[in-house]
Amino acid sequence: MLKIERWGMALISNEDTLKSWNDGPVKQSILEFLKSSTQEGPDYVKPADRIATFDNDGTLWVEKPMPVQLDFVFRAFARTAQNDPSLVSKQPYKAILERDMTFFQKAVTQDPETSMALEDAFARQWSGKTPDEYEAEVKEFFATVKQEKFAANFTKLVYKPILELFDLLKKYEYRVFVCSGGGRDFMRIISEDTWGIFKENVIGTASEYEYDNGTLKSVEKVLGGIALGPGKVEHIFARTGRLPVFAVGNGDVDIEMLESARFRLLVHHDDDEREYAYENGVEKILAIAKEKKYAIASMKNDWKQIFR
Amino acid sequence: MLKIERWGMALISNEDTLKSWNDGPVKQSILEFLKSSTQEGPDYVKPADRIATFDNDGTLWVEKPMPVQLDFVFRAFARTAQNDPSLVSKQPYKAILERDMTFFQKAVTQDPETSMALEDAFARQWSGKTPDEYEAEVKEFFATVKQEKFAANFTKLVYKPILELFDLLKKYEYRVFVCSGGGRDFMRIISEDTWGIFKENVIGTASEYEYDNGTLKSVEKVLGGIALGPGKVEHIFARTGRLPVFAVGNGDVDIEMLESARFRLLVHHDDDEREYAYENGVEKILAIAKEKKYAIASMKNDWKQIFR
Repeated sequence: MLKIERWGMALISNEDTLKSWNDGPVKQSILEFLKSSTQEGPDYVKPADRIATFDNDGTLWVEKPMPVQLDFVFRAFARTAQNDPSLVSKQPYKAILERDMTFFQKAVTQDPETSMALEDAFARQWSGKTPDEYEAEVKEFFATVKQEKFAANFTKLVYKPILELFDLLKKYEYRVFVCSGGGRDFMRIISEDTWGIFKENVIGTASEYEYDNGTLKSVEKVLGGIALGPGKVEHIFARTGRLPVFAVGNGDVDIEMLESARFRLLVHHDDDEREYAYENGVEKILAIAKEKKYAIASMKNDWKQIFR
Repeated sequence: MLKIERWGMALISNEDTLKSWNDGPVKQSILEFLKSSTQEGPDYVKPADRIATFDNDGTLWVEKPMPVQLDFVFRAFARTAQNDPSLVSKQPYKAILERDMTFFQKAVTQDPETSMALEDAFARQWSGKTPDEYEAEVKEFFATVKQEKFAANFTKLVYKPILELFDLLKKYEYRVFVCSGGGRDFMRIISEDTWGIFKENVIGTASEYEYDNGTLKSVEKVLGGIALGPGKVEHIFARTGRLPVFAVGNGDVDIEMLESARFRLLVHHDDDEREYAYENGVEKILAIAKEKKYAIASMKNDWKQIFR
């Protein structure tokens, strides 16, 4: 029987370990690494150093047709533009109102100019808001919007095999962090109930807040840069004082994070039936993973069950 | 018998709880708050929200004659100026070489111009250094330099009553963070062995790092502002996604952090014999603490033993 204490140490009996994973070399390599890194021997990692980091979009939940947070952000921008005609002809509002797929694609691939327009609009949208106000907006989104292919709330589309891996890592006294290019404060609103990860273990791109007269308010500034590519490693070091020992990602923006770790696991989306199959935005990391023999979890072959 | 597991849950039997504290209203109020906030009732705080934050200098260890990190930094600046005559007439090098007490006082009280000169010199000093290089310098400092009044290593001058409070908070499932205006990466080097606090639970002022070609290097930029005054609350929210429930400080730069918490404890330095007695830089917080009835720990009367 699976007895999970998501907050702290996981209590999983051996027969239940990673039970949504098919037996095979990937599952085997995870189990072997966790054993060898936590028992005496040449691969031993002392408890203080046991940091595991996971990307979010595409590693922890569905990232198609677009990352969940972009869906939230675009809906907010559309509402803003509808209330302010002066914005209708400006980016990113124009593209959003016209459902301009080229712009969306540029957003997903982090085209610099597009990213800048989005960042500016992002800061403008929530500037002056308190954390509670932001939380209410995000909760409303999660309660009402459904993912189009699965007609399900986004929080239902979190991968069960990864949640099992969180538990197993905790059992081996790894401390689990999620590090995403997406919004830190967006993820934190669902991290505890959905992932069993305390807010403080969620790392991501973030607005700066100002504390004045007893109140915290968001200001128009991105704090500490975007947590993508090398920025992921920088954010992880800033937050934890370490590089990860165990890292899991799925996209080209995770290359550096995986490179900085000792055990690297790539989630490969090759299951168009139960989820999606795509290589766009993951070509480079897939080639590196094959060349350097990272563990590659095929969603189709390695995962018995996809969603929690 | 005191059985402490500093890494995780503390295992302290009742008779050993806060044993370096004298019985009295301050110890009583701490014990009562910890009970009432963790058992059912109007003051209950759910486990996820149980965040405790501590200032470092003057709250966790001796801050006289100057904060420990300033001692480290000034020694490094002096070495740099000795090797580069062009710096000898510039601040902060000039003041350090001349032992200009006015300048030191301005540094301690965070005079803006002085802080800026120090920040610039700080970034210059360690720019391009890797975390390992920085760590080696800091370890050398701690191994060799002694505090002048007590002729002891600085890490011996950590307050035992506060370490006991860390353990007690952990027992009640509070997550303990240290938040200092001082350098995050400086504190992290001693946080695990000296305080039993993982690096990731240390919050402070920090250089930015850049990850390039598989290497992290410090760059000439302070990331996220200085963690002092309102900046402490901003840093705590950025790191934890929450405001503290339990906060402990000793100086005017802790006013906002204590204000943002539910239980506020002020460490008052009034023991010139066993440590120091001073009110300079703490006048405002002391007045607020008296007016708003914060818990005030008199070092002289409330602490049986000062150092660990």
